[in-house]
Amino acid sequence: MSRIDFQTEPGRYRHWRLRFDGAVAELLMDVDPAAGLFEGYELKLNSYDLGVDIELSDAIQRLRFEHPEVGAVVLRSAKENVFCAGANIRMLGKATHGHKVNFCKFTNETRCSIEDATEHSGQTWICAVNGTAAGGGYELAVSCDSILLIDDRRSSVSLPETPLLAVLPGTGGLTRITDKRRVRRDRADVFCSTEEGVRGKRAVEWRLVDEVVPPSAWEARIRERADEAAARSDRPRAATGVALTPLTRRFTDDGVAYGFVTIACDRAAGRATVTVAAPAGPPPATLEAARSAGFWPLQAARELDDAILHLRANEPALGLLVLRTEGAAAQVLAHDAFLEAHQGDWFIREVRLYWKRLLKRIDMTSRSLVALVEPGSCFAGTLAELAFAADRSVMLDGARAGDNRPPAALALSPLNFGAYPMANGLTRLRARFWGEPDSVGAAQARIGAAIEAGEADALGLVTMVFDETDWDDEVRIMLEERASFSPDALTGMEANLRFVGPETMETRIFGRLTAWQNWIFQRANAVGETGALKLYGTGVQPSYDKARV
Amino acid sequence: MSRIDFQTEPGRYRHWRLRFDGAVAELLMDVDPAAGLFEGYELKLNSYDLGVDIELSDAIQRLRFEHPEVGAVVLRSAKENVFCAGANIRMLGKATHGHKVNFCKFTNETRCSIEDATEHSGQTWICAVNGTAAGGGYELAVSCDSILLIDDRRSSVSLPETPLLAVLPGTGGLTRITDKRRVRRDRADVFCSTEEGVRGKRAVEWRLVDEVVPPSAWEARIRERADEAAARSDRPRAATGVALTPLTRRFTDDGVAYGFVTIACDRAAGRATVTVAAPAGPPPATLEAARSAGFWPLQAARELDDAILHLRANEPALGLLVLRTEGAAAQVLAHDAFLEAHQGDWFIREVRLYWKRLLKRIDMTSRSLVALVEPGSCFAGTLAELAFAADRSVMLDGARAGDNRPPAALALSPLNFGAYPMANGLTRLRARFWGEPDSVGAAQARIGAAIEAGEADALGLVTMVFDETDWDDEVRIMLEERASFSPDALTGMEANLRFVGPETMETRIFGRLTAWQNWIFQRANAVGETGALKLYGTGVQPSYDKARV
Repeated sequence: MSRIDFQTEPGRYRHWRLRFDGAVAELLMDVDPAAGLFEGYELKLNSYDLGVDIELSDAIQRLRFEHPEVGAVVLRSAKENVFCAGANIRMLGKATHGHKVNFCKFTNETRCSIEDATEHSGQTWICAVNGTAAGGGYELAVSCDSILLIDDRRSSVSLPETPLLAVLPGTGGLTRITDKRRVRRDRADVFCSTEEGVRGKRAVEWRLVDEVVPPSAWEARIRERADEAAARSDRPRAATGVALTPLTRRFTDDGVAYGFVTIACDRAAGRATVTVAAPAGPPPATLEAARSAGFWPLQAARELDDAILHLRANEPALGLLVLRTEGAAAQVLAHDAFLEAHQGDWFIREVRLYWKRLLKRIDMTSRSLVALVEPGSCFAGTLAELAFAADRSVMLDGARAGDNRPPAALALSPLNFGAYPMANGLTRLRARFWGEPDSVGAAQARIGAAIEAGEADALGLVTMVFDETDWDDEVRIMLEERASFSPDALTGMEANLRFVGPETMETRIFGRLTAWQNWIFQRANAVGETGALKLYGTGVQPSYDKARV
Repeated sequence: MSRIDFQTEPGRYRHWRLRFDGAVAELLMDVDPAAGLFEGYELKLNSYDLGVDIELSDAIQRLRFEHPEVGAVVLRSAKENVFCAGANIRMLGKATHGHKVNFCKFTNETRCSIEDATEHSGQTWICAVNGTAAGGGYELAVSCDSILLIDDRRSSVSLPETPLLAVLPGTGGLTRITDKRRVRRDRADVFCSTEEGVRGKRAVEWRLVDEVVPPSAWEARIRERADEAAARSDRPRAATGVALTPLTRRFTDDGVAYGFVTIACDRAAGRATVTVAAPAGPPPATLEAARSAGFWPLQAARELDDAILHLRANEPALGLLVLRTEGAAAQVLAHDAFLEAHQGDWFIREVRLYWKRLLKRIDMTSRSLVALVEPGSCFAGTLAELAFAADRSVMLDGARAGDNRPPAALALSPLNFGAYPMANGLTRLRARFWGEPDSVGAAQARIGAAIEAGEADALGLVTMVFDETDWDDEVRIMLEERASFSPDALTGMEANLRFVGPETMETRIFGRLTAWQNWIFQRANAVGETGALKLYGTGVQPSYDKARV
């Protein structure tokens, strides 16, 4: 299978079109049936595969960074009579279990980024459903802030996965209809068992959509809603966007080299080392000088995001990610100070929100994460979040003989205490210290200091500390041992231990809903030879083992 | 396979012994290796199967109802050098997927009932770990309020499932160590990857146990802890317990008949109808007269509990439970008034807590639940919770021709508004009206009234209303349609829709943790021919597919 590439740009889109009109943008879904990511299926009726979603994700990012003037985004279909038919079923029927799971994870992250734009970025998404919005199509709509449904006696919304496909509305559908749309649970049960879905007044009464609009008023009402949302936006209409220029990447057999990020694969050991480099110098002198894709926090985030997505999709057998950093912690902290000083600026806000989403993506990555804190590393401020996201962090106590760099140290910045909440709403430090909340304050009191191993251990900021004598053996044994375990058990263990305490709609989607969907994605009733996903479209009825478990 | 029976009594226990000494009881685990529920495995080292847990569950119930004088329960092992080795691995290796899932669900419910006794019943559970507490053995300990570990250089606690068995500590272990014991997440990661576990001071420092005790002080310290807990209990030491006399049950090919509960199986249609009858007369005149296993709320709860467990374990192909009630709603409401008037009494408190747990068990039952509200039914107060627990409730509008009973009606009592919280902490009505909280108050204003179909519909208390003309066809079609869907998709859908909004440790165990475990229980790395569960104990190392999904 060829490498799945998560980089694209509007000029290369096959499935989407962007239109701009002042403070309102339109994103039109117009899926090219012939442009599926793999062979063997046609993307009819605006159904989608991972390739369609990669473009959607790119469009969301560009709207945020390149279009400060846009305060509202109207999501709609360019096709007649269909909004979106959801994930392509033949694609799902043919895909491996791993691809299905990764596809769903990425689409879920994309839906969450739509909500993040609406909630935090002053860019409100409005969905205009003209035609059928079925399954993943309706789930896409539900990730928008409001849903308008045309009242033409044909257009409807539906989640027909259970009756039709023997799987769940797993891209957040089940969770969002109860938690976000607040559909009554028994009505949700009826809705999710009704292939043909719901339309008209009942769709509003059940809170499935916000408004039904007669065809005569359709365009005007969409524009009215969008204008209202844009008028509420705090984005600067006169500002100039920051172009997300193509990343520089070099793929080799053993890894990928970006500007600040490198991936080094050790396939025999089942692991990849991901190294993030500090900026070479201080932050720009002015905010204006920062507005470019080369601004370190933005470039490093884009590179690391691409690296994580690449590893997820293209390197499934590398179950262990070793997280490293290198360079001057002082420069990382100086950039953090810049991000903190200018947090009111639209662009800096976007950069911070991007890091928030990127770190969540790392939390959700089903690979074991081990951070190695060594001399020469710069787990400082924003980059220290990598150590806190890791399942374990291991720190070398002191300097190495013959190495004239200072001893390994961690450093904290104000950004560790609120800028990057996890999906459960907690900072990584609050999650870490769930059982000892006072420890958060103890760490906070040391903002800016170089925290060497002894103190880091005492503050509870690292898992284990070894001196030079033990380091090589201890780390080697730990990594070998981890790589020897069942990847499935590790996935389940990590998915539980990483998210302590409170749950949010988002964690419920990635935890409860996704875990059940993954289970179903292995059941013969869905994926067996006579299962619903396999037989869909053949005219043959699936036959089910009727035993409940 | 012979029928799994959930009824037992101390005289028939094979695996546990109860000892009483004033306000302190001891429950000793002493599993008979030869008394497994099925052939093919030996229950060595206090490992357990479902049969062991059925006895444990019975012991918990009897401690609550039969021993008002007991304020503290010490859970310990009667064997040398081992507390409990957890679920029996050979049993798990041989069990069907469905049995594994059901076994885990029941053991999880049993662990939760230990916590319920501690929190709500004035019966504090203390675990005295003398020897190895591994896997499910440690999970059992963690369900107790506190854990004492003997400091003998041998005794340890561990969750070795991931490294050893390629599955999760799925009986709440992963969730409880972070959410209840508040073990730091990276330490939890280390702990759950360390086969040999943790002992001594580190076990306390990591919050895995509450106290390590030298052997010389062991017995005295256990007793001291127990006496302290018992002294805090509000249970009446001088009261007489209520004997849980054997249930009267008659099994036939087509169902089960209890005193107030009947199960009627329709195997061709894939469903069972569960009918609960109202009490025949008013509640007893005095509290003293109520203290018997024949007190309707207690007897009905015990019967319905047994019925649900029987259907889960022995009738997996009946995927749809039709919930019915019959009799005089007034008598149900009169009993509710009795339960409300005497809620301060220890026995009445136990009855109410039992209904709370029973209704949670129904919520957690992976069968479609449909309540039929017809003339002659008594979905009133406590029994109305069955309709609110159902995925759907359907109500007949008016009376039937030729039927001189009054029209179908629902009725509410104060107990619908707080006595029976779901696992997520919400009443079923609050969960139902998650999107319209005012509707809870509107329902509350109608406590005691006979709410006929039109009003029930307007208040949002039922899903659908049909008149006599449509009833038979509509209900038949609905039940047939439901039975035609994939049971797996329904399980996943219901597990999501039934639990809106907030999550608690309990819902996280049944949702996130259990769903991941169920997924892993289907993975070849665990259950395949070269998987860890299959090869455990053979000396052959499992071989894993190393791809992450």
